[in-house]
Amino acid sequence: MASGARAGRVLAGSVLTPAGVVHEAEVAWDDEGIISYVGPVRGPLAADDIDAAGQVVIPGLVNAHTHSAMTLLRGYSDDCDLHTWLAGIRSFEMHLSQADIVAGLRLALVEMIRSGVTTFADMYAWDAALLDEVIDSGLRVLAAPTVFDHDSRPYPSASPLDGRGVLALTEELAAQYAGHPQVRLAFGPHAPYTCPPQVYEDIAERATRLGLIVHTHVAETAVEINDIQQRYGASPVAHLRDLGLFEVQVLAAHCVHVDEADIATLAAAGVGVAYNPVSNLKLGAGIAPLRAMRRAGVRLGLGTDSVASNNTLDMFEEIKVGALIQRGLAQDATAARGVDLFAMATHEGAAAVGFPEVGALEPGRAADLVVLRTDGPHATPMHSVLAYLAFAARASDVRDVVVGGRRVLADGVVLTLDEDAVRAHAAAVSARLAGDAQAAEAVGEHP
Amino acid sequence: MASGARAGRVLAGSVLTPAGVVHEAEVAWDDEGIISYVGPVRGPLAADDIDAAGQVVIPGLVNAHTHSAMTLLRGYSDDCDLHTWLAGIRSFEMHLSQADIVAGLRLALVEMIRSGVTTFADMYAWDAALLDEVIDSGLRVLAAPTVFDHDSRPYPSASPLDGRGVLALTEELAAQYAGHPQVRLAFGPHAPYTCPPQVYEDIAERATRLGLIVHTHVAETAVEINDIQQRYGASPVAHLRDLGLFEVQVLAAHCVHVDEADIATLAAAGVGVAYNPVSNLKLGAGIAPLRAMRRAGVRLGLGTDSVASNNTLDMFEEIKVGALIQRGLAQDATAARGVDLFAMATHEGAAAVGFPEVGALEPGRAADLVVLRTDGPHATPMHSVLAYLAFAARASDVRDVVVGGRRVLADGVVLTLDEDAVRAHAAAVSARLAGDAQAAEAVGEHP
Repeated sequence: MASGARAGRVLAGSVLTPAGVVHEAEVAWDDEGIISYVGPVRGPLAADDIDAAGQVVIPGLVNAHTHSAMTLLRGYSDDCDLHTWLAGIRSFEMHLSQADIVAGLRLALVEMIRSGVTTFADMYAWDAALLDEVIDSGLRVLAAPTVFDHDSRPYPSASPLDGRGVLALTEELAAQYAGHPQVRLAFGPHAPYTCPPQVYEDIAERATRLGLIVHTHVAETAVEINDIQQRYGASPVAHLRDLGLFEVQVLAAHCVHVDEADIATLAAAGVGVAYNPVSNLKLGAGIAPLRAMRRAGVRLGLGTDSVASNNTLDMFEEIKVGALIQRGLAQDATAARGVDLFAMATHEGAAAVGFPEVGALEPGRAADLVVLRTDGPHATPMHSVLAYLAFAARASDVRDVVVGGRRVLADGVVLTLDEDAVRAHAAAVSARLAGDAQAAEAVGEHP
Repeated sequence: MASGARAGRVLAGSVLTPAGVVHEAEVAWDDEGIISYVGPVRGPLAADDIDAAGQVVIPGLVNAHTHSAMTLLRGYSDDCDLHTWLAGIRSFEMHLSQADIVAGLRLALVEMIRSGVTTFADMYAWDAALLDEVIDSGLRVLAAPTVFDHDSRPYPSASPLDGRGVLALTEELAAQYAGHPQVRLAFGPHAPYTCPPQVYEDIAERATRLGLIVHTHVAETAVEINDIQQRYGASPVAHLRDLGLFEVQVLAAHCVHVDEADIATLAAAGVGVAYNPVSNLKLGAGIAPLRAMRRAGVRLGLGTDSVASNNTLDMFEEIKVGALIQRGLAQDATAARGVDLFAMATHEGAAAVGFPEVGALEPGRAADLVVLRTDGPHATPMHSVLAYLAFAARASDVRDVVVGGRRVLADGVVLTLDEDAVRAHAAAVSARLAGDAQAAEAVGEHP
């Protein structure tokens, strides 16, 4: 049971269910935060219930790939090529303390709550303090502590741990939070071009033993494809398969540059692919072959990636852009439907990130839901609720958010964090870090 | 002078000027609604001035191509191929009365005000009643009454006028509103594939005589290219040039399928091109060669196209998507900078739509400006105001809007229209029209 859960109901103008949109309906959940009923309104609301008459209720959104604490870098290294961008980001991150990461994570939690995200899959410098922040916020996380190789320290200023230490910590955290409804752990090897084969083999063994997901970046850029081909004589997907990684459940972010054989491999192995269209476009990585992956039966989720390459954590934008670019590229308006992207942002993504109990409003699933206010001009008229959800709804429409029966946003007010304090602190930390990074660059310290 | 203008000032945390971002600054304007000063704060505000301390002030946005009254069709014919989409749209529009168009226009005006648009270029069934609606709203419009051919009635249920009648009306309206600061007229031939050569030749002659802009669709889809090539042995751009159209000022929407020779023609003729990335993607039309057009010196603006193919009038989204798709397609993060798209959405677009006096905050320009509230998590931190504007700012950040010195949105409240009534009326009209269209389809009346 999520902390703070209690039985409750929401009454709405429209409810999005697996069977379609139901009008003038209610969703009810029990003391464990599990949905017990979805259907016609059964009677007047109690004082603590949520009156969303005339509004739209949807499942909480699932962000299948992000590095949420990187909110601190919003707009820091922008409008430049990938190399300059990376150098700027690295220079900034060299100075991050663990306390700074908490500040960035809190800002991300506020932003995600405000945009209707209730579950997210994240790769960063995760530790118990950060996981407890997520628990306090009310959200759910698949947390993957980042690993590069066995001997280097992924976040030198934030943590003394090298790769071996991070893998041991991941195992400890998995044991510590076992059974917690809001927290699951994943191994987080960064990417085939940064992690040597032994690291992936080691992780495959550990993940098999513990039943954990492995969250990694795969086939993001054309440069990576060439690099892995030269080093290992295989595509990144084939390389990871050959290392035995796909014997365990994998969440592969990006998969922009995958060919037919790669797609068949991903589908056959049940690899979850996180499609990150905004980030892939902004960094010039390219456009993932979504239609081919969908046709092949690849398990798909949708992610924002980090704010450093986005510059928001807005899943509504991701849904719209993610559908549109496929249609424009294929010159075919049926190449990707909004409703498919919405499924990736909810129940399909939930399965891919290891929270199969969320992402749909039906009895037996967790009560993770979002009320969207429909009084904006952009929500009028509403010939189709699904068209509204895919192509017109905005983060600013999010009025209430419930996770596992616990309210985390009520009438536009974040209940689980002090939003003003979080914003002020993150702004101050960001300004200090930018100053540190610029001072270090001025004396040629890095890079 | 725009009605309701009076001298005033806004004091802001950041002001975007042609010379860059100025911090802790003010913008002042005179009784004519013309900017008289932009620079350091000169003293305390008067009661009627706008206190935007800590916020960001930008020029009002310019939507360079839309059919704004089509808000009534939001989400009506969605997630289908272009042919089915068009049939759905046409079926709906067959039943539009002029009163319905007023309802749709009012909804669009509210949506544009709420998203920071102060000037828009529009092609639809314009008449004096509609122009007066825009004047009352406080916005500025380049209005092009649509023409197909000389003999057919573009909006049969809304107007008895055939093409000749519409052209005569356009001339009358141009005379009637001559010198009005909010209204300019354009001729609106629909497209080379719907308008015969004589219509373009007639319009070129009329536009030359009257000094009016011609607003037309050009080279939107690959199908159009083939069609025009087969009929006239030329590309759409070359065909219009050969008809003499580029002797006058032209605003060409789309230009998705233009080759090097076309681009050179557009640049040499000073044709303004309205780039409509979201619509072009959503309908599967393709992706316009923005970088090539920019390098060739083509005059560029940015548009949303209609809600029927978007599904909003959100220029912030258009800026972000418009930059990102170029970067993804070219696999080069420098292929389009956010700041360039922002310029297209302001002063560059203003010149393309024939309102060169708007689009920049500097003395001598019209006081068309927008206050963006920066208290959202997505606006924190703000390492770069320009990165915020291009990649993180949202329609929901728009707090105040001033056009020609007149406030049309104040602290999030639309002052010039009754928003609730407008929304309710548009919803009712849309529902009735959808019912009419479906009933007609059921008896096989039209496609």
